[in-house]
Amino acid sequence: MPRLADQKKDFPQWYLDVIAQADLAENADVRGCIIFKPYGYAIWEMMQRDLDRRIKELGVENAYFPLFIPESMLAKEAAHVEGFAPQCAVVTHGGGKELTEKLYVRPTSETVIYSAYARWVHSHRDLPIKLNQWANIVRWEMRTRPFLRTLEFLWQEGHTCHATKAEADAMAEAALKMYSAFDRDMLALPVMTGRKPEHEKFAGALYTLTTEALARDGKAIQAGTSHNLGQGFSEAYDVSYLDAEGKQQRPWMTSWGVSTRLIGTLIVVHGDEKGLRIPPSLAPVQIVLVPIYKTDAERKDVLAACQKLSSSLSVIRVKVDDRDEKSPGFKFNAWEVKGVPVRVEIGPKDLAAAQVTVVRRDTSAKEAWPLKQCTADSFQKLLTSVQDGLYTQAERFLAEHTFEAASYEELKQRIDGDGGFVWAPWDGALATAEKIQNEAKASIRLVDDDASKIKGRKDILSGAPAKSMALYAKAY
Amino acid sequence: MPRLADQKKDFPQWYLDVIAQADLAENADVRGCIIFKPYGYAIWEMMQRDLDRRIKELGVENAYFPLFIPESMLAKEAAHVEGFAPQCAVVTHGGGKELTEKLYVRPTSETVIYSAYARWVHSHRDLPIKLNQWANIVRWEMRTRPFLRTLEFLWQEGHTCHATKAEADAMAEAALKMYSAFDRDMLALPVMTGRKPEHEKFAGALYTLTTEALARDGKAIQAGTSHNLGQGFSEAYDVSYLDAEGKQQRPWMTSWGVSTRLIGTLIVVHGDEKGLRIPPSLAPVQIVLVPIYKTDAERKDVLAACQKLSSSLSVIRVKVDDRDEKSPGFKFNAWEVKGVPVRVEIGPKDLAAAQVTVVRRDTSAKEAWPLKQCTADSFQKLLTSVQDGLYTQAERFLAEHTFEAASYEELKQRIDGDGGFVWAPWDGALATAEKIQNEAKASIRLVDDDASKIKGRKDILSGAPAKSMALYAKAY
Repeated sequence: MPRLADQKKDFPQWYLDVIAQADLAENADVRGCIIFKPYGYAIWEMMQRDLDRRIKELGVENAYFPLFIPESMLAKEAAHVEGFAPQCAVVTHGGGKELTEKLYVRPTSETVIYSAYARWVHSHRDLPIKLNQWANIVRWEMRTRPFLRTLEFLWQEGHTCHATKAEADAMAEAALKMYSAFDRDMLALPVMTGRKPEHEKFAGALYTLTTEALARDGKAIQAGTSHNLGQGFSEAYDVSYLDAEGKQQRPWMTSWGVSTRLIGTLIVVHGDEKGLRIPPSLAPVQIVLVPIYKTDAERKDVLAACQKLSSSLSVIRVKVDDRDEKSPGFKFNAWEVKGVPVRVEIGPKDLAAAQVTVVRRDTSAKEAWPLKQCTADSFQKLLTSVQDGLYTQAERFLAEHTFEAASYEELKQRIDGDGGFVWAPWDGALATAEKIQNEAKASIRLVDDDASKIKGRKDILSGAPAKSMALYAKAY
Repeated sequence: MPRLADQKKDFPQWYLDVIAQADLAENADVRGCIIFKPYGYAIWEMMQRDLDRRIKELGVENAYFPLFIPESMLAKEAAHVEGFAPQCAVVTHGGGKELTEKLYVRPTSETVIYSAYARWVHSHRDLPIKLNQWANIVRWEMRTRPFLRTLEFLWQEGHTCHATKAEADAMAEAALKMYSAFDRDMLALPVMTGRKPEHEKFAGALYTLTTEALARDGKAIQAGTSHNLGQGFSEAYDVSYLDAEGKQQRPWMTSWGVSTRLIGTLIVVHGDEKGLRIPPSLAPVQIVLVPIYKTDAERKDVLAACQKLSSSLSVIRVKVDDRDEKSPGFKFNAWEVKGVPVRVEIGPKDLAAAQVTVVRRDTSAKEAWPLKQCTADSFQKLLTSVQDGLYTQAERFLAEHTFEAASYEELKQRIDGDGGFVWAPWDGALATAEKIQNEAKASIRLVDDDASKIKGRKDILSGAPAKSMALYAKAY
């Protein structure tokens, strides 16, 4: 197997190498699209299963809306269509004929879903409506990278409709909390959470909340967003309800989503010089057993020991790599690249000593475990420890790469150096944000509106009074 | 709630009424597309979960391939493109520009998947490859009906690649067996299984196997198909491998799928004059508890009893319908239309007698159950009995509507009458099948090649020697 590019020297190539060697995905024949190979798709399935449960716990039900959006429907919300129409794939022919109205392949489903809500909502008794769909999405991106930015991607999109702003605020907040809990528990991913600045909010939204992770190359990566859409879509799609007093009202919408970009996030946050490192909660294979043998007799004994151990660990996702044609060294490397959390080696010497060799992927630490220690309980504890280990490493990296800049010079130095997140007072002006974006290549990932933090402080570039603290970073 | 159309007098309208009143789906703004509403989508999720497990038990892994197929890629397999290209939606513009090559929205994924297999398969050691994907599909149908035939639908498609014809035969057969076991266990659906006649096989296949169910209006409905694709796609997409002797060989492909059409199948096979009847294995709600009360004191007692019973039945999917604004009669009707297998009524008189009233949806039979009988075990047994009851009813209907025609006149009479399946000897000629299709409106759903059954027999129309027994029916 070819070696990975050096993560420190060529992060982008290292990223592509990991995807290829871990057999997660490959480029498809259609520009900018990828084929999700079984190992990559299995990670997405693990994410889906857990997130689907969390979504349902919020009282949200799954549904499914059409892939195609008629041009006239997309056009109704002005800011939204301006943001999304240029990114769309357009169907002009069907059944061998030119269509009388063009169909847009969904770049997101607000328009099609809220057109339905207009039919479904009449009275305050019909609210709230809380739906989610798992779907494929197409956005005509010019520069693509597997998982991180692709023409077609997979996601979930929640769409809710509420009687009041307070309820919509609470829902947008609850979705964000769900994502950050999911990020922490499943992806071992520490994230910064907050509000996007106005110029970075979702097209058509009142405000956008975001979870932002930090990749090991010092760049920010948006992991999930939650929007309070206000009443703009209710206006545009003419959704209204009679309140308890018999007055006509416009409901408030929220939408929120995460996508297969999370697989890319996993790679850039946890990956190391040996490849991927998958948190145990999410790993399709949690423990790989590698038998080591030379003679047929040895082979028989160690394979029997592997099978016995494997079947004793039933609730844990275990794989015995019994391929005869591959050497143990090849297997070690292959499963390290794939990021399997724990490797257990069993050879004749181990058996003679009534032990196995246990290697954890997060630290590469190697231990001999007496056979009698090899219970499901012990391995479960080890997996929990690996999960915590990955989180702790990522959390430390995040803490060590989060700064506060006292001056614009310091911000530029930080961003030009190892990157990371840089807090700085911001005057709230788009011009300031744009100048910093152009000069320092850093965008505002989120803002903190806490008044106590900006009292008496001035924007690092303009010197104007600060309106909020801004979190700057280079971004994916 | 408006009443359903009479199932016996206007089956098509009854079908649409059930979908609307059970709140399964509604027509979308895009012609021929539907919105899967939460209750309809929940049934699909139940199907997915079970089928996904069965697919993985066959050693098949999930993956995901692109939605778009470049025109040049679709064009490679002649029979396939001829069959599918006229049914496709075509993307001609993306990112605001006209594309240099048109993209077809997948009508099925043989072309895109086997193009990838061409890159992945080199040696006999790379085989078999067994993948499945859950995906949305678009076919530009002119006449559509919710679930049964829609422009966009959801499905799974398995795609396997084997070294030999024998292996591909076994795989196609195993998929068919999986479907008929799934139909029986989950959908309580008895099916006829067999081979499609040549003129009805999948475009590009060597042969197609099918499962055919019988709707209560006497029409056949194709529930799932499995194709041995032979070596045609291997040729077209240049897939080849070196066998153990170092000789270049063409592998054999299979593909197989079932879709959201199964939801329609469920309705037309099990639905009755009161609406849908969902088999318990598949029901999102297996038992609905309906409290009956007039005074506040009664309300408190019966709701408490409902909650207590509900929480004691934890593994069963139970819903307490505690809506104050709806009458018990309204609720009975609503849950009957939705096809919930068991209804439990709890009123003050029931509580006084330490009993509940239990109504099964398959037979409408009503029983008083002493409270002490109300265990999870007893209800689980009842649900099993409802599952069996639905299967038995459908099986009896199928048996009572399966005939053998001694003459063409008899076939026409049967088909013109109550419909159903009609076996008849067939000379294997397309002309014969077409004439019967045109005159009697019956198509050949599948053929039985058992030589012993046709010995000395003649085609009922042409009088030529029979080549197989054909199963005729009107079809969806």
